[in-house]
Amino acid sequence: MAKMKMIIDCDTGVDDALAITYILANPDIDLLGVTTTFGNVSVELATKNSLLITELFGREDVRICSGASHSWLSDCFVPGEVVNVHGHNGIGDVDLGEPKRKPDDSSAVSFILDSARKYGEALHLVFVGPLVNLAECIREDEEALRGVGRITIMGGALTIQGNRNIYSEANIAEDPSAAKFVFGSSLHLDIVPLDATLRTMFKVSDIKEWKDINHKGASIYNIARYYYMYEYNDENIGGAMHDPLAAFASYDPSIITNWFACNLTVEETGRTIASFEELNLPVKRHRVALDVDTERFTREYIRLVSDLIRS
Amino acid sequence: MAKMKMIIDCDTGVDDALAITYILANPDIDLLGVTTTFGNVSVELATKNSLLITELFGREDVRICSGASHSWLSDCFVPGEVVNVHGHNGIGDVDLGEPKRKPDDSSAVSFILDSARKYGEALHLVFVGPLVNLAECIREDEEALRGVGRITIMGGALTIQGNRNIYSEANIAEDPSAAKFVFGSSLHLDIVPLDATLRTMFKVSDIKEWKDINHKGASIYNIARYYYMYEYNDENIGGAMHDPLAAFASYDPSIITNWFACNLTVEETGRTIASFEELNLPVKRHRVALDVDTERFTREYIRLVSDLIRS
Repeated sequence: MAKMKMIIDCDTGVDDALAITYILANPDIDLLGVTTTFGNVSVELATKNSLLITELFGREDVRICSGASHSWLSDCFVPGEVVNVHGHNGIGDVDLGEPKRKPDDSSAVSFILDSARKYGEALHLVFVGPLVNLAECIREDEEALRGVGRITIMGGALTIQGNRNIYSEANIAEDPSAAKFVFGSSLHLDIVPLDATLRTMFKVSDIKEWKDINHKGASIYNIARYYYMYEYNDENIGGAMHDPLAAFASYDPSIITNWFACNLTVEETGRTIASFEELNLPVKRHRVALDVDTERFTREYIRLVSDLIRS
Repeated sequence: MAKMKMIIDCDTGVDDALAITYILANPDIDLLGVTTTFGNVSVELATKNSLLITELFGREDVRICSGASHSWLSDCFVPGEVVNVHGHNGIGDVDLGEPKRKPDDSSAVSFILDSARKYGEALHLVFVGPLVNLAECIREDEEALRGVGRITIMGGALTIQGNRNIYSEANIAEDPSAAKFVFGSSLHLDIVPLDATLRTMFKVSDIKEWKDINHKGASIYNIARYYYMYEYNDENIGGAMHDPLAAFASYDPSIITNWFACNLTVEETGRTIASFEELNLPVKRHRVALDVDTERFTREYIRLVSDLIRS
């Protein structure tokens, strides 16, 4: 069987790095490229980190295409307190040196749309940062995106408080206007919000065996460790695997045990909410992950990444 | 088979009246009593309307017990703009005269707790107003309530905007402190929030046959009509069957097509939200109705109430 093709759009970030690692580790997925955006870090740093993580696993074939540097609501991006979560370099202050490669000549939007036109249903798209790149793809060629196999977004908070403030989740809050445009489009979307991702708290103890396997294992261990300790600053709570869960759910939606069908919209504050105006329409464009098989996700994630580290 | 016994706690109100009517219409349910609270109207008016609705259907045997007159946060209750939804008399400005009976000597709390001790699992409790009566029952004898068959609450809004303001639903917003106390108790609760009830919009055209059957039919038709026209002031939208859906779901939870398991809490604003602190506990005390089989609910509700009117 032909492998599923995937592109992930990241603001790389620790959990973004752990999502890229998952995709590289899954033998059924062919990671075509990583597109980048501002969010956890600047787009420049997201691009550098995406180059470094793919190179750590010897995957110089994965194209890294740079995208949006700021939200639609602003002409620049100033990183916030998120530096405490991901470290000053975005990958837990672990030094992976300088990338061997430069980023691709294609822009994120061109690369995504070209791939959508070329691969159609075989292509899965995963967006785990602010949604500017996706919004711009929709503006340019919504029809091409309607042909892909699946579009999965990590973002939002419905039944749980946000992580930017009590109403909003960081990816959506970075650009509520782009997110509202995306949710208002004709695209059918899988949304993986905090409601599900906060049920996937990994602790340092879950990954401790990686530390002593080799350089790859030690690097990923140290990157993850920084984040697992900082997200809630408590070894017994750990850190949420936001972006890895979205990547996993793109490959295998059955990991989500409650898909809630609705038509989402975004308030100015960045709160994601089902639209009352569209509540009783027969077509629901979105399904939202509200619960997850945490045990299976944890087990399969760690097994695949352990295998990748050893390979 | 012995009938299911039920008590409904109401701030009667049009949709409360339509919930009482449903319970009277369901031949498998024995309505022991209606307990009352402030909310849509004053507790005095809720009690009067509960007497009138049960008497309209010749059910003077149903005990009507008066309860809380105001929230824990206040020493009085001032009805708000809700008068536009339910009419000045709380039942769509329809004149049903004066009740034949007086309310029961038992208080709402005594009647609920005595019934819980007497009937245990055979008893289902439904709360469709602010939660002060339930909170006071819990304070007095939580253990007795742990023995009943089911406790169902109409209240809250998780994936959809509220109806008091964009964050909060009216029953919870009337007393967030009582609601927080209830959700924080050990009781297992079924919650039917706006997420589900706003999918049950009845229009005047759905019930038009009731008008010409007899006095009972014309009365209920006119009460419902007022509300269906006023809730969104649009004949093509209609009005939400909030309280009837909670009563229906107490009898038949399979009408809810998405029960979301969580541990709810209440913010000071009255927003209902899954507690992050309790998100990953193995025990989920609450299941929240996020979607409903609208077609079956509508069909079965109208069939039963039509039969009651004709009986």
